[in-house]
Amino acid sequence: MELTIYLAGEIHSNWRNELKEKAKSLQLPLHFVGPMENHDRSDLIGEEILGEQPNPIFRDEAASNINNLRTELLMKKSDLVIALFGEQYKQWNTAMDASAAISLNKPLILIRPEKLHHPLKELSNKANVTVETVNQALKVLSYIFDTE
Amino acid sequence: MELTIYLAGEIHSNWRNELKEKAKSLQLPLHFVGPMENHDRSDLIGEEILGEQPNPIFRDEAASNINNLRTELLMKKSDLVIALFGEQYKQWNTAMDASAAISLNKPLILIRPEKLHHPLKELSNKANVTVETVNQALKVLSYIFDTE
Amino acid sequence: MELTIYLAGEIHSNWRNELKEKAKSLQLPLHFVGPMENHDRSDLIGEEILGEQPNPIFRDEAASNINNLRTELLMKKSDLVIALFGEQYKQWNTAMDASAAISLNKPLILIRPEKLHHPLKELSNKANVTVETVNQALKVLSYIFDTE
Amino acid sequence: MELTIYLAGEIHSNWRNELKEKAKSLQLPLHFVGPMENHDRSDLIGEEILGEQPNPIFRDEAASNINNLRTELLMKKSDLVIALFGEQYKQWNTAMDASAAISLNKPLILIRPEKLHHPLKELSNKANVTVETVNQALKVLSYIFDTE
Amino acid sequence: MELTIYLAGEIHSNWRNELKEKAKSLQLPLHFVGPMENHDRSDLIGEEILGEQPNPIFRDEAASNINNLRTELLMKKSDLVIALFGEQYKQWNTAMDASAAISLNKPLILIRPEKLHHPLKELSNKANVTVETVNQALKVLSYIFDTE
Amino acid sequence: MELTIYLAGEIHSNWRNELKEKAKSLQLPLHFVGPMENHDRSDLIGEEILGEQPNPIFRDEAASNINNLRTELLMKKSDLVIALFGEQYKQWNTAMDASAAISLNKPLILIRPEKLHHPLKELSNKANVTVETVNQALKVLSYIFDTE
Amino acid sequence: MELTIYLAGEIHSNWRNELKEKAKSLQLPLHFVGPMENHDRSDLIGEEILGEQPNPIFRDEAASNINNLRTELLMKKSDLVIALFGEQYKQWNTAMDASAAISLNKPLILIRPEKLHHPLKELSNKANVTVETVNQALKVLSYIFDTE
Amino acid sequence: MELTIYLAGEIHSNWRNELKEKAKSLQLPLHFVGPMENHDRSDLIGEEILGEQPNPIFRDEAASNINNLRTELLMKKSDLVIALFGEQYKQWNTAMDASAAISLNKPLILIRPEKLHHPLKELSNKANVTVETVNQALKVLSYIFDTE
Repeated sequence: MELTIYLAGEIHSNWRNELKEKAKSLQLPLHFVGPMENHDRSDLIGEEILGEQPNPIFRDEAASNINNLRTELLMKKSDLVIALFGEQYKQWNTAMDASAAISLNKPLILIRPEKLHHPLKELSNKANVTVETVNQALKVLSYIFDTE
Repeated sequence: MELTIYLAGEIHSNWRNELKEKAKSLQLPLHFVGPMENHDRSDLIGEEILGEQPNPIFRDEAASNINNLRTELLMKKSDLVIALFGEQYKQWNTAMDASAAISLNKPLILIRPEKLHHPLKELSNKANVTVETVNQALKVLSYIFDTE
Repeated sequence: MELTIYLAGEIHSNWRNELKEKAKSLQLPLHFVGPMENHDRSDLIGEEILGEQPNPIFRDEAASNINNLRTELLMKKSDLVIALFGEQYKQWNTAMDASAAISLNKPLILIRPEKLHHPLKELSNKANVTVETVNQALKVLSYIFDTE
Repeated sequence: MELTIYLAGEIHSNWRNELKEKAKSLQLPLHFVGPMENHDRSDLIGEEILGEQPNPIFRDEAASNINNLRTELLMKKSDLVIALFGEQYKQWNTAMDASAAISLNKPLILIRPEKLHHPLKELSNKANVTVETVNQALKVLSYIFDTE
Repeated sequence: MELTIYLAGEIHSNWRNELKEKAKSLQLPLHFVGPMENHDRSDLIGEEILGEQPNPIFRDEAASNINNLRTELLMKKSDLVIALFGEQYKQWNTAMDASAAISLNKPLILIRPEKLHHPLKELSNKANVTVETVNQALKVLSYIFDTE
Repeated sequence: MELTIYLAGEIHSNWRNELKEKAKSLQLPLHFVGPMENHDRSDLIGEEILGEQPNPIFRDEAASNINNLRTELLMKKSDLVIALFGEQYKQWNTAMDASAAISLNKPLILIRPEKLHHPLKELSNKANVTVETVNQALKVLSYIFDTE
Repeated sequence: MELTIYLAGEIHSNWRNELKEKAKSLQLPLHFVGPMENHDRSDLIGEEILGEQPNPIFRDEAASNINNLRTELLMKKSDLVIALFGEQYKQWNTAMDASAAISLNKPLILIRPEKLHHPLKELSNKANVTVETVNQALKVLSYIFDTE
Repeated sequence: MELTIYLAGEIHSNWRNELKEKAKSLQLPLHFVGPMENHDRSDLIGEEILGEQPNPIFRDEAASNINNLRTELLMKKSDLVIALFGEQYKQWNTAMDASAAISLNKPLILIRPEKLHHPLKELSNKANVTVETVNQALKVLSYIFDTE
């Protein structure tokens, strides 16, 4: 039984690779999906496909049409969602994705440093499990397959 | 036909009062609900009811149990959700509430200053309408009842 | 038992008034809702509330955000939808509203002249009842309350 | 991960073949489904299977029973819907299919020439992405699989 | 708390009146809805509103469009469904209504004479309660309001 | 793309075999599921597994628990349901299955002889397609796969 | 805004009265519903309405048909569920009701003595709030209406 | 057609192995999933992954976060649920799982000794089939695949 996991979170760092490599070394039957990780391409995909937009707000709107389509489709095909929060960036799209997962009844693992516990308290409360590191998230995933 | 509107957003300022008074002066048949606006009470409601908790993380968890119950119940009874974002505060709970509204098929009006358009682009794209002021949000609400 | 009826269709003519007056004279316990019938205001509501838009396509998008919010909210509160088609206008929004009603399991009455039977065949097939005049639609509504 | 895409739109031209061939050349893991493209057979399938019908309206109804069954079944099995609009034909069934996709939470890509922006404004607003050409639609699909 | 009860079953006899009068005498806060009980009018409502149909099958189809719209709308507004079966008549529409109630998660009380237990075994198994008389059905309804 | 078809209807005759063989000869990618066709075993499965029951009504109830579990599970895994009605037998379980299919949004093909059009009018109206023979049903299924 | 609260739990003691009286003294706009509290009547309601049953198992089954119908109907009309666990009795029906509330997305407050924390850990984790006394449950309810 | 079966129940004994071995010998195409059966690991998994917790209640909460995530994910992927009750242990989590299965429309087989019929009457009534032994449960599963 393979599981598809949606990895929600900022696309400025390499955290998804770390998680995928560890999962691979643990030989977990997991297939990972997520957003476009090339940050510039993600921001400009609207103009890349639809052409130049009148101003930055419309540029963002055009890109979000396409990025949201990708997220909705891939999240729908997922069995579980991991949402990672860090100290940089507003990450309102990450909170949006995490909340969508909950509403869609997809189990949600939240990864956040301890110092962010207060602003994330409501989301953390609704998530299935809150952990602090990618390692802990993987242990939860691994546990799903463990028989003893 | 009266509408129940859930007002999601930070509870540090008075923005809900401004919105309610303007709605009243426009004589719109609206009933507003929202979170506990006494910020300290909201943060400490867990300990208020359940007793002292071992540390700040558990204090937050206990409070969030109760605050999330209130939000879920009131949002379920709502016809539309307004989510306001400002430049202060992380507001991940606001993003969570806004996204829950979308997933529950409740129309969502997002209020945000223009300078926050980039970090809110995905949420703004999924919301029904994005405006910059409480006044504009009220005009949208008012329009629902207009016949000409 | 009062029913709320959403009236979908073009906003260039007076057909809703005819239907409402006839319902009134039959003393049917019906409450009617529908789109903004002032055609110019409907087209320009985006700019009216959000300010000038860069070009006609964005003007339409801004207006549609608001008009669609109104439609979704009112249709959700409705027990039944009537969709009227005429020989003028593209009426793709009417077809969109009629189809949304079907997917939301709201009973749908389609009003269309006989000569439009061919392009409307699929929608007519999925609608509950297809009639040709407002009078016939009212007879169907009236029948819901009849005891003999 | 293969995606099943439902292609909604008029069946008078060859647009689906163009889209499928381009997808093939891009080696996208896509499986396409859609309506019966033999226009005469689609119109007459009711009589073909059920026998002669009393008049053209009943002929259309019999055909639509069968065509709608095919559409519902195939759309249910689809991950995403593309709806193409052109300047000819009423295309109310296309608008019906596009709206059904939205209500079923299937991501929707709308393809329409710019000059149709006004009558399609409401549907375009609710669709995930609106593009003008088959090429652009394919770029959106391709982007779903892109990692960089 | 008033309950709306949909009474499904044959429209050849007077059984609904018996049930309503007994409920009234027990002063139960119940509001009853159901199909058109004038059997001829029910069969001919299609032609009454839509005009003459080519043959009996189309006459039935036209009537069923309208009768099914009435049933769907009223059943949707109901809290509970009672379905009565007797020894006469095919009653496939009654079985259809009873099964729809179950699928819509409306509690269902089945009234049937003991001698029909075998052909009704599957439906009876899925219904909440199976009784043999209108009196017993009323006792079940009454019990919902009882405090001791 | 293979489809799973649930065959609902009486289990006294051989009609399913006829349908399966014809589908096989047409090389349609269909997988058929259905109820236990050994009529005596179906009636007695309750006692076979659970032991003797106090009387025929409880015998039926015990069997129906198990037969309904089988039907629910298999119908849930199906893409389309065919319900066949004949002139013998009450067939209330068939009507129940057909109606469940409709409520579960599974496309439904009804097979019935013309002379049963009147008692089946409501169910026929809600089904996607009504045909008179197994051959016609297969043509509808075949059409789903046809490209021209 | 009045809330309807379903009170699930054992019917051997008086705990519901305590809760209702306290709610009344706090003047909370709450309407309470729940199971039949006359324990003997609840156990025998099957035989009371349907007549003598062959043995205790069938007696229980007959009663449960009717008690479950009452619970489903009243829980469906509720905005929130309170489930109380005590140290006596198996209370598997209480756990069943609590879990049904969660699956139906009704907010759930669990009342249980601290010493039962271990066997209730999974249910407590899925409930919105876990408290130890009726008083604490009322404080949570009261908080929903508090503005400061 | 393979079925995935979720085995809910106490994790103190070996009952799942007995069931799996018998299914294997019957060559039933079944894939079984269930909770962590190492009882100590199940109770301590919270601390194993998240670190030491302040007290037993928080230890249980941390473990339940993770165990409930596992259950929700595996139950969602299941076609049918078996819930076994024995005379030891409170088994409120088993009742919770059984009730979740019912609410999720997963067919449920209840295994319980006859002497527990009274406290399990409500759950047994809502389950599809109630049996007393693992053997009987397997016969029900086997029957799903039987053709005669």
